Order: sequence, then C-alpha cells, then structure tokens
Amino acid sequence: MVGKRLVIIGADAAGMSAASEARRDDPNLEIVAFDRGGFASYSQCGLPYWLGGVVSDPAALIARTVAEFAERAITVRLHHEVIAIDPARGEVRVRDRRGDESITGYEQLLIATGAAPVQLDIPGLDLDGVFALDVMEDAIAIAAYIERHAPRHAVIVGGGYIGLEMAENLVARGLDVRLIQRGEQLFGLLDRELADRIGAVMEAHGVDLQFCDTVLEGCDGNTGRVQQVQTGAGVFPAELVILAVGIAPCAELARGAGIALGQTGAIAVDRQQRTNLSEHYAAGDCAEVWHRLLQRPVWMALGTIANKQGRVTGRVIVGGAAAYAGIVGTAITRVFELEIGRTGLTEREAQEAGFSTVATRIESTDRAGYMPEHRDLTLKLVAETGSGRLLGGQVLGRGGVAQRIDLLATALYGELTLDDLAGLDLAYAPPFNSVWDPVQVAATRLLRAAR
Amino acid sequence: MVGKRLVIIGADAAGMSAASEARRDDPNLEIVAFDRGGFASYSQCGLPYWLGGVVSDPAALIARTVAEFAERAITVRLHHEVIAIDPARGEVRVRDRRGDESITGYEQLLIATGAAPVQLDIPGLDLDGVFALDVMEDAIAIAAYIERHAPRHAVIVGGGYIGLEMAENLVARGLDVRLIQRGEQLFGLLDRELADRIGAVMEAHGVDLQFCDTVLEGCDGNTGRVQQVQTGAGVFPAELVILAVGIAPCAELARGAGIALGQTGAIAVDRQQRTNLSEHYAAGDCAEVWHRLLQRPVWMALGTIANKQGRVTGRVIVGGAAAYAGIVGTAITRVFELEIGRTGLTEREAQEAGFSTVATRIESTDRAGYMPEHRDLTLKLVAETGSGRLLGGQVLGRGGVAQRIDLLATALYGELTLDDLAGLDLAYAPPFNSVWDPVQVAATRLLRAAR
Repeated sequence: MVGKRLVIIGADAAGMSAASEARRDDPNLEIVAFDRGGFASYSQCGLPYWLGGVVSDPAALIARTVAEFAERAITVRLHHEVIAIDPARGEVRVRDRRGDESITGYEQLLIATGAAPVQLDIPGLDLDGVFALDVMEDAIAIAAYIERHAPRHAVIVGGGYIGLEMAENLVARGLDVRLIQRGEQLFGLLDRELADRIGAVMEAHGVDLQFCDTVLEGCDGNTGRVQQVQTGAGVFPAELVILAVGIAPCAELARGAGIALGQTGAIAVDRQQRTNLSEHYAAGDCAEVWHRLLQRPVWMALGTIANKQGRVTGRVIVGGAAAYAGIVGTAITRVFELEIGRTGLTEREAQEAGFSTVATRIESTDRAGYMPEHRDLTLKLVAETGSGRLLGGQVLGRGGVAQRIDLLATALYGELTLDDLAGLDLAYAPPFNSVWDPVQVAATRLLRAAR
Repeated sequence: MVGKRLVIIGADAAGMSAASEARRDDPNLEIVAFDRGGFASYSQCGLPYWLGGVVSDPAALIARTVAEFAERAITVRLHHEVIAIDPARGEVRVRDRRGDESITGYEQLLIATGAAPVQLDIPGLDLDGVFALDVMEDAIAIAAYIERHAPRHAVIVGGGYIGLEMAENLVARGLDVRLIQRGEQLFGLLDRELADRIGAVMEAHGVDLQFCDTVLEGCDGNTGRVQQVQTGAGVFPAELVILAVGIAPCAELARGAGIALGQTGAIAVDRQQRTNLSEHYAAGDCAEVWHRLLQRPVWMALGTIANKQGRVTGRVIVGGAAAYAGIVGTAITRVFELEIGRTGLTEREAQEAGFSTVATRIESTDRAGYMPEHRDLTLKLVAETGSGRLLGGQVLGRGGVAQRIDLLATALYGELTLDDLAGLDLAYAPPFNSVWDPVQVAATRLLRAAR
C-alpha cells in the first residue's frame, strides 16, 4: 500500500515544526519539504546577533540539519523552488538549482513560504553593498562584504525590529551607523511617547538618527559599489546600506493556485491552519493569524507565531485535534541596553479598533528601589473604560521587561481586568521586585482614577 | 461633630497600607496606629540585605516615616504595645515604653500584629550572640554584635527563606557559615528533587550544611556570649547563632478578645478582612488568607500578601467595595546566584490536597541557547490529570526565574490549562527567550504524555 505524501513549501520555522509534529504522531506519512534557499530550520531572529559577533558560529542558529531531519524520515530538498501549485491534480512544480523542473504529487500541502522584504523601486539598489536582511544567505553576504571591504559608514533604512537590531550589531562591529526613519517615530509598535525613548539610547551609542518623509531616493556608487545614499534628510556617505523598510507575506504562489488571501494580503486560514482548499494548509509568515483582542485575523510575521502555527498544522494533518489559540500582539526586542516590549494593543491601536480606553504611564524600577542593582522601568497600561478589561501594555527598561510583558500577555490571554492585575499573587523578594509589581502600581492608578 | 476613629495594632505593611488607603478615600476618619517596636512601615524582607552590606543605609528600607504619616493625618505611636482589646466597649489598653498604660477608644479596629519567630525551649538561647531575625531591632542588634565582637563562626538554624538569605549575607560579611536543617531537605516550599539543587550552590560558596533530626539542643558560652552550639549533627563553634526555625502568627491578643482564629492558628477573616466581630478587622501575617487553588484559608506570612490585605481593609473600612482575591502560593528568593521560585502547589502539596497530578521537570535555558549569556533554567510543572488544569510551577536558575513564576502565577489566577500555556503569546527574541518558553516546552511535554 502506498501511503499519503505531505509536501511542504518552505523549510523553516512553520514548515519544519509541522513536519516534526506530523512525524511524531504518524510514522507512515511521507514528508517532503522544498526550500528555495540553502538552509532549513534556523533562527532568522538570531541573524543580527551573528552579524554583530555576539553569536560566533552561524551553525548555532540551525535548530536541525537536513541530515537530522532525514533521520526522522523527513526529506528536505534545499535549493528547490516550488514555482507552481496545481491543487486539482495535487501536484507542485519544482525548479532545482540547475533550473531543471520536476513534478511532485501530494495528498496534503502546507504552504509555509514566509515573508520577504518589500521591494523598492529606487535607483542604485543593485549596487554591491546594498542589502536587505531576510534569510541566512543575506547575513552571509553582509558578513562577507564587511570582511572584504571594511565599510566605515553604514546607513540603515527603517527603524523597526531589524533596523534597530542591525544598528546595535553594526555599532558592535565598529561601523559608523546612521538610521533613516520615515515620519517622526522609531518602532511604530509602541505609542509615540515610549518610542521616543529609543532614539536617545541609540544616539548615546553614537547612532545618527534622521527622520524624513522620503527615506531613500537612491544609492550611488561609480565602482559598482555603493558610496553614498540620497535621502529626504540629505546625502550621506554609505559603503554599506541595510534596507529594513518592511516585509510582506510571500503569498503569490498560493494566490496563483486559487488559494484565498485575507484582507491583509496574507493567506487566510482558520484555527486549524486550513485554507479555502481542502487539504491545503498555510502557516507562518505567509499566513494570517487570529488576534484574540481584535477578534479578527491580522498579519504579524514573528517566529513564535510560525512555530505555533506549524505545530498545529502538523497535528491537524495527521488527524489530531488542535487549534491555534491566536495572538494577543506580543513583541519584544533589545536595542543596546534598552529592552523594549509590548503586548495587546497600544493606546493608538485600541482607539483605532474602536475601544474606549483609559491609559497610564508610570516610572518605576525592575526590583526593590533600595537594592543597588535596581534599574529604571517605564510601563504603560491600556484598559477598556468601564469594564476595566486589560487591553495592552508597553514596557521599556534595562532589565525585567520580558517579566512584565509575559505576565501581561498571560493576563490578556485570560481576559483579566485591572482589578485582577492589582490582586495577582506575583513573585516578591527584594532582588526581583517591589512588593507591588509595576504592573500592579499602574493598574491601581487606573482603578483609582476610575472611582 | 466628632468623627470615627480607626485604631490599628501594628504599624507595618498591613497596618500602614490600610491606613494610607483609608485616608485616601476618607479625609475625616481619625487614624491611630500603635506599634510596640520602634519602626513603622519598613521592608522586613530587606533586612538580610542590609546585614550583608548589599543595602548600605537601613533608612532606605523605610517606606514612610512617622513624620510622613503625620503629614497625612495618620498618627503612629511607636513603642506603644496594645496589651488588651475590649471589643464590647471599643477600647484598647496600651502600654508605652515607660510602662504607663492608657485606654484608647475606637469605632473600628484593625489587628495587624504580624508574626513572630517560634519560641524554642532550649538552654542557652539567652546568651549574647543568639538572635532571631524578625524586626528591624533584631537586624540592628545583629549588626552591632558583628561590629563589636567580629564573630568568625556563624551557625544558622533553619533552611527556609530567612535561613537561606542570612547564609548568603553572612558569607558576604566574611563569616564562616554553617546551616543546620531539620530532616533531609532545605527549603520545604519546593519538591525535594529541586530543593536538593540549593545545597550544592550553598556548599560551593563555602556554607557547611548539616542535616539532622534535632537541629538545636543548646547553646554554650561561659562568658555570657555564645561560643558553640550542640546539635543533632554534632557540636560546632559559633560566636553568632541565627535562629530561623519558623514563625507563627501573633494572634493571642485577638484570641483573648474573643476574635476567632482559623484552623491554621491565625485570625480567621473573610475576603473583606472582617473577623467574626463587627468592625474588627485583621490583615497581614497575623491573619489567614484565601488560597484560590485549595479553595480554603491558609496561613502564609509574606509582605506581598500583607500589603494587599491592608489595602483591601483600608477600602472596606471607609465603605468602599473591595475584596481580596486570594493567593495562588507564589514565593521567590535568591541564594547566592541561584534564583528559586514557586507558585501554585508543589507535586507533594497537590497530592496531599487530593488532586490527581501529572508533573514534568525540564532542563532548559533562560534565553536562546545560542546567545552567549544564556543561563541554565530548571522548571517543573504540575497539572491536574484529565482536565490539564495548571496546578503549580517551580523554577530554579541563575536568571529569568521571576519571569516564569509571574507568568505561571498569572496563569493560575486565570485558571489556565496546559493547552492554554502551550498557546500563550509570550515575548520572544533571542536576548530574552527561546521561541518556545521553557513553560511551554514543559506544558507540551505533559500534553503529549497525556495523548
């Protein structure tokens, strides 16, 4: 008897989580994953830290090698790009590194094609020294370029996660770093008054920040290598340019096969990661995700979501009961010594979603103020007027940020109110916290204001 | 018109939280707090760190001075011990430092008498150099004794919070430290296999651990000062002895006035901190507290509970709506570099309470394993068989422990299941965590085992 075959397009977080999970419960399913790149199952989020020298060996970023997958009877074909899906026949058309094409049949298909940097139509982006940081190959190319050409001036275009993390890591490599950001605010995932704290830290580490409407007008260089950038804020020397202006879901392949996209432009999925076509699944950065507070699908490309969606898909594919609970909007990053976290909705996001909000911001410390190692912590809470239901939190500090974000994310999942937060039985001892956690101080302030 | 008077017995965490909260909502209430000691409103939990020299100024431990309370029209009478309560007349009898007694009437009474070290009937405890660490005066006396006599050998009797924290801080002061513990396990708040890790860390820092059935048989010294201790494990030199064998609620005064105690021996209270007598309240270490998982009152003397109970009492006293949500059993401490946390029930506690349990222990890291600063983390989860409801967690590590304890405490409050834990949208970035938090790794393992 011939068994069923699962084909996976994209051998990274979502795809390989699904493969591992499916294999766990079904030893007979044939599993084949295609990836157009040369690496499977690695931590994309670790790439900036490898570039900065924090992580010394890129192999450390690889969770499992192709050989390790093979041991579990999971076939990974790298440098194999799926160029078409035929859902009616249950076939994908695959092009290998040499350009040869072949057909592979499937009973079940998982699209895990990820996201890719937004393509800009600006002159000079083909110059050597202009990069986006997306996949491992990009990181390798950037590292090789820095080794070979020892650029002095780096210009980073965009102040989201990648832009901020690259700024830190290029400073660590000894480059002069300038960051160009559209508009007036770095890191749009925070409310403005908190995001404004990030710039001061970056400038203290020597990063030159430039805000303007047109972040990039062109890259120039007469030797085939970039030498300067033209921006809305002026012309700057740049022997290295990192484009970090955003990413978009890789959903074209799916759309071409009749798979429905959602309003976000990513692939629409239900809580079992099913698309509109039977036995066709999607997971990870190419797919939408359910937002528990907004009660609608959103697009948020994060490794933690990709892993969870992949695992659910793997269970569902082999007939298991599983459903993805959805997100509450959690994200965290670090820029130099500043930890930056958020969960739920910002005040602006909550208002845009139609919530009536109350919010407060407090200046506190990560542990008892009398302990010499205490560090400042800024926390903003957003709640629904009347009901007091927690809607979100943002935290900045030099330590203890993940601690508060994770408890708030758990509280959001459990739909707790400000009253619940104030009553939580949290861990207290002087090396860890004050007797009232900053989350509780903020919740209490909002409760008192509401009386 | 003469207003109402609130009398508070005990001017520390619970009492003064209540006073501050009541004053906030009622500017006319007369508030008088009596305390037999010489300090109000300070962090008892900070005392070991002051003794160890981590906190240099004991004034830093004082949250608010008597003068600051006076500015808010809260009268604090230090060195005034309440020696009797007459509920029928609404009067307390107070003895001042000189032994003079007086009567103060009240319309409302809050008993916040705290807890005190268990008294042992063992010869030699009256020798100079033998201390318990309870109130600020004890810490001052210990510090003065160390200054004057420069003891070389310290023996700590008892391996709970105080014993462990004192061991760390006496080592920091340069003493030879020996800790004597009854039975076979340090820190009974953890399951045995985790508690056993604590001893290795203490020994690595030069603490000599002795386990025996009779921890203390006597203290000897022929100059009026202690020179050695006799224990079930042998006779040891000791110019300084710290008794940390446990504490008990100070409930005698209340009991003498006809106020009902609970089965734990602490004062029985409802969720508004009311005792069995109308307008007589109790809060803090002298009172019981509702345990949300056990669904019954327990006695747990912690500053974080005292503050919360005090605040609720203050609200209720002035007619506000408030109810204490109760605890889930959270506690944390640090011994040298080892962070030790728990929340909910241990496996043993859960079984004793009649739960059918599943449990797992994992060895993980506090952040992405490829980040050079990652540290080991051990985590144990306990859940209810069948329902998968989370019952508790224990975490040990050199960092990131409070982060996991607080999210688990929040999850316990929200009555989340293992399935919920595995799906939580937690903060992920390499400097903070792995893509699956150790809590989720453990939850997933239990879920898989249950399939």
